[in-house]
Amino acid sequence: MGTVSLAEIADVGRDRVRGGYSRHLFEPADLELREWFVDRAIRTGLDVETDRNGNLWAWWGEPGPDAVVTGSHLDSVPGGGAFDGPLGVVSALDAVARLKTSGFVPSRPVAVVVFAEEEGSRFGVACLGSRLLTGAIDPDAARRLTDTHGVTLAEAASAAGLDPAHLGPDPEALSRMGVFVELHVEQGRGLVDLGAPVGLASSILAHGRWRITVTGQGNHAGATTMAERRDPVVAAARTIVAVHDAALASPGSRATVGRIAVVPGGTNVIASSATAWLDARAATNASTLALVDDVRRRAEAAVADSGCTVTVVLESWSDLVEFDPALSAGLAGTLGGVPLLASGAGHDAGVLAARVPSAMLFVRNPTGVSHSPEEFAETADCAAGVDALERLLRSLL
Amino acid sequence: MGTVSLAEIADVGRDRVRGGYSRHLFEPADLELREWFVDRAIRTGLDVETDRNGNLWAWWGEPGPDAVVTGSHLDSVPGGGAFDGPLGVVSALDAVARLKTSGFVPSRPVAVVVFAEEEGSRFGVACLGSRLLTGAIDPDAARRLTDTHGVTLAEAASAAGLDPAHLGPDPEALSRMGVFVELHVEQGRGLVDLGAPVGLASSILAHGRWRITVTGQGNHAGATTMAERRDPVVAAARTIVAVHDAALASPGSRATVGRIAVVPGGTNVIASSATAWLDARAATNASTLALVDDVRRRAEAAVADSGCTVTVVLESWSDLVEFDPALSAGLAGTLGGVPLLASGAGHDAGVLAARVPSAMLFVRNPTGVSHSPEEFAETADCAAGVDALERLLRSLL
Repeated sequence: MGTVSLAEIADVGRDRVRGGYSRHLFEPADLELREWFVDRAIRTGLDVETDRNGNLWAWWGEPGPDAVVTGSHLDSVPGGGAFDGPLGVVSALDAVARLKTSGFVPSRPVAVVVFAEEEGSRFGVACLGSRLLTGAIDPDAARRLTDTHGVTLAEAASAAGLDPAHLGPDPEALSRMGVFVELHVEQGRGLVDLGAPVGLASSILAHGRWRITVTGQGNHAGATTMAERRDPVVAAARTIVAVHDAALASPGSRATVGRIAVVPGGTNVIASSATAWLDARAATNASTLALVDDVRRRAEAAVADSGCTVTVVLESWSDLVEFDPALSAGLAGTLGGVPLLASGAGHDAGVLAARVPSAMLFVRNPTGVSHSPEEFAETADCAAGVDALERLLRSLL
Repeated sequence: MGTVSLAEIADVGRDRVRGGYSRHLFEPADLELREWFVDRAIRTGLDVETDRNGNLWAWWGEPGPDAVVTGSHLDSVPGGGAFDGPLGVVSALDAVARLKTSGFVPSRPVAVVVFAEEEGSRFGVACLGSRLLTGAIDPDAARRLTDTHGVTLAEAASAAGLDPAHLGPDPEALSRMGVFVELHVEQGRGLVDLGAPVGLASSILAHGRWRITVTGQGNHAGATTMAERRDPVVAAARTIVAVHDAALASPGSRATVGRIAVVPGGTNVIASSATAWLDARAATNASTLALVDDVRRRAEAAVADSGCTVTVVLESWSDLVEFDPALSAGLAGTLGGVPLLASGAGHDAGVLAARVPSAMLFVRNPTGVSHSPEEFAETADCAAGVDALERLLRSLL
């Protein structure tokens, strides 16, 4: 069956404008990656099924309870790197292929999983597939999510061959999972600083996404005096500076605006509205919510004299995750005492952790850069990741 | 031939996301409007030709020198109103139709013109068709202009059936023009304040467009501490506030950011770059350029501590226009002494004015709002506009 490698999908979904990859749920690149996964899993001797939420499961042995599940996601942020997501899927297939080749006989079912829309880049909610599976998002609310073209998740799911009425909690699929291990490229410099090629996750920051919308009055950029304006772009700019200031005022927290939509968006047009998406994270649920309260206060102050109004609306939320300490400590021991690291990034394993014993295996990232074409991991470290994952699977099986 | 009315094109190019209309050069809505114009002009007994730059000319009588030309444009800003552009085209066709119906025999050739890409919404340069015609833009630079999908003007022109090698100065077409009169909805409250349904333009502010690009380091929004960041969105936000401050510090000037592009543009991604387009206008060429110099200084100061860099690059420029005083005074007298108004908005007539005696007829806008779905003109005022245009044509013919 041969070694499974990221090189196999290196040409899928390249973004010629942004650089890197743009692979978004049920768009052509994502569909091509899904086909690749199905084919690769079949060639590895696995049986593939798609669950009601569009997550893919490749089974070694009869699907059943107490399975050892490993995998990650194939979708990307816009202009993302090659490793975030696919490294975990490729490594999982490769580790399972090696176990099969070696003649290993598992004592429990094994599955490689691909979760849908982990990045939330098309429909705005991160870890959408694992949230739907576990019931962490209301299916009606999920069906109504729209992409930037106004296509709903229900419509996109239908176009991809799913029944949108079936989106939602999947207790049967969940009940099969005995343990979940997600391998992922690290998205910071923790392992670099520790000089370790791999490590395990201890926790994930609490985090969420909010939509900050500033509404003003659209008008002509040349014919409207400065005094007559109610310009939402200026008010939104002040708000973005306020977001940054709020994060600096709350040590350890992180607040980011990385996506902006100006309506209508013409050079010679004073906009009628501007929306900035806020990504906010902190060490605890309470401190994250306090940060966003502070953002809200600062945003209202920032727009106060502009004649504009501002609203801050929650789009998605993830509680602080503390991975099962006994499981992670045991797995770290299996790997000869690799380090445990806190993660600033959210993952499907964080969503799963609320329902299934879960762990994460990180692979060193030499620069810490992620969500960027410059995201990287050395070949040797990726190999160390597969080795480690194979050892973990052996220990769990 | 019947009355020509905006109602005929009310359904073409509606923007379901932004509201209003999005009609951009050689995109389907613009092509449909062009077909409508050709058909409507033919039904009015005019002979239609497309010039080398995609401008449409509908002739009454043999095309020839010393023609009286009237018209405007059919393209819109994104999410624009129904009147900006099309009112001038519809009124021109209607006025000519009335002259024909009345049995009037013109002493000079008459043409109704539709200029291409007046708003610059697709390729970034306002009055592109009239600039190409008059040689106010270098044809090689124009051919290389790109839209947001990376399509060049040369490619778009070719797809629309033009020979891109022929884009550029058109002395033959220009030599036929004896005088140009453009009817346009007013984009401010000048006529409202004066209680007049129509007026003539005295001048157009000097204005231009600049691309302000802030470059930082793309990274993960959750895994990157605030101290590690070089976030171009925060630096661009400070720059946008600086643009506003610069305009406030220069009385009478106008500076606007109405279009922003964040790359890559993911909610959970610290961007790698952010571009804000600046529209700047002031009473003289020198004061406009001084305003932009001030913007540049303030932008450099605004990004100084962010680890980002900023560039400010000119995209297009329009000198201050002072319409031929004798022509405008004469036409105002023909209309019984209608007021003369300065315009903050640019127009094809402003570009033409450098080469051909030109004038503009404004129709009252009850709110002054333009470049917005709320742009409006009362039916009675539109009718007064056609009446006035017909009288001006009679006086010139």
